[in-house]
Amino acid sequence: MQISEIYIERFSHGKHSATKDFVAVEEPLEIRLVSWFKGRRESRTVAITMRTPGHDAELSLGFLFTEGVVQRAEDVVAITPAGLPPHNEILVELKQDVEVDWARLERHFYATSSCGVCGKTSLDALELKGLSAPAVNTPLITSELVQSLPAKLREHQEGFARTGGLHASAWFTPSGEMPLVREDVGRHNALDKLIGAALQSGTPLLREGVLLVSGRASFELLQKSLAAGIPVVVAVGAPSSLAVELAERFQMTLIGFLRGEQFNVYTGGWRIRQ
Amino acid sequence: MQISEIYIERFSHGKHSATKDFVAVEEPLEIRLVSWFKGRRESRTVAITMRTPGHDAELSLGFLFTEGVVQRAEDVVAITPAGLPPHNEILVELKQDVEVDWARLERHFYATSSCGVCGKTSLDALELKGLSAPAVNTPLITSELVQSLPAKLREHQEGFARTGGLHASAWFTPSGEMPLVREDVGRHNALDKLIGAALQSGTPLLREGVLLVSGRASFELLQKSLAAGIPVVVAVGAPSSLAVELAERFQMTLIGFLRGEQFNVYTGGWRIRQ
Repeated sequence: MQISEIYIERFSHGKHSATKDFVAVEEPLEIRLVSWFKGRRESRTVAITMRTPGHDAELSLGFLFTEGVVQRAEDVVAITPAGLPPHNEILVELKQDVEVDWARLERHFYATSSCGVCGKTSLDALELKGLSAPAVNTPLITSELVQSLPAKLREHQEGFARTGGLHASAWFTPSGEMPLVREDVGRHNALDKLIGAALQSGTPLLREGVLLVSGRASFELLQKSLAAGIPVVVAVGAPSSLAVELAERFQMTLIGFLRGEQFNVYTGGWRIRQ
Repeated sequence: MQISEIYIERFSHGKHSATKDFVAVEEPLEIRLVSWFKGRRESRTVAITMRTPGHDAELSLGFLFTEGVVQRAEDVVAITPAGLPPHNEILVELKQDVEVDWARLERHFYATSSCGVCGKTSLDALELKGLSAPAVNTPLITSELVQSLPAKLREHQEGFARTGGLHASAWFTPSGEMPLVREDVGRHNALDKLIGAALQSGTPLLREGVLLVSGRASFELLQKSLAAGIPVVVAVGAPSSLAVELAERFQMTLIGFLRGEQFNVYTGGWRIRQ
């Protein structure tokens, strides 16, 4: 289940048509460690990661190895998928004599951003957090506006031009101005910086307009955009399955694969003036 | 301090020359929350993220907002950088009446991978974990081999071909065979899957050969490669500053920007046969 088939609208040189397309599947995986302490069996979550289902046992083993929890494959007795398909939980049972340094683990796994809300019911969790759809009465945008965004970003993206190694998040008003742009090696950081700047400005800046992200659109970026009330997200790259589902559920407009005069509309096409 | 200048070797059509280049700076940022509980001031780390220094106050505020810790800019009294430049710690002080749900925070911030070892002394921490340089007596590789890798990966990267949304990690033997390739929406997951598969195979598979990653080379990917004993990492995209520093410190060979017959060698050029 690495790939999911969906219907999209494809815009090309001013015309648009409905078509089938494929997106990479993104689902949370909760890795639970089953270990022994003073003769007692303990089970604890060590990580939740957004991944593409498949090879989950390898993922869990590789993760625990590269993070120093296990030293070799033999430290693990069994790796067992759990939960309904696509099995978003996995149990990794350690040999009785493998000691887990929980204090160190907790310190180390004190996150990077990403997985604030994931879990089996990622989208439900967002609703429980009280997040709701962005305004529906925002100004419509045109396909010309969408197509003009990458060139405007490039003009200002100095860091990327010199290193090729920085992601950008840029904010555009409905008339195409770009009051805010932020760069970072982490795409989620670039967006957090942009949202933080908007908050500091004290204006409801991000409620009417378009967010452009330089790379792909993950669940995480859509979740952050939703929290900020952003109605339209445009990605230069591909969206994941869960990004599309989130946008659909919360009536956000999600555009991807923006290249020249061509782009795909995954959800919320009604915000684009025909 | 978004960009760092370094010296590299550039290979182009079989010739190589030393040149200056720029990489995006990657450094850890520890976000500490200062809050009040029953009249007592508490300070706790809520996240450690690998970021490009700059706009750190915005990053912290945006992160806390999008993760639901604060509801508005006014919830925050002060944001103060700490530590020596580039100030890899930041203190976010909340208003006295803002309550922090630590239990929920801990559950939610139970990480995605990334930041296993970061902190002010990321590279020192790796040595303390007992990680050491990969073998130095591995077979030399040729520039022809390096150039041949992306085409071999493309042949097998079905998921990417259909979605444009999957990262890949591929393992190549010194003679150019590709016994392992894994795809995922997360680049760190693709590498964890590859390393997990190698561990399960029970052979010291990754000690002689070349890892190819489809995107950029971050600190995290280099840290995982080091843990697996991988001597040569080739990225299609750009490396970060900290990825280069890690590779340098641990005598790994790091190659980036592999495009056609051209690539950059950031560290460990002695593993390439001239």
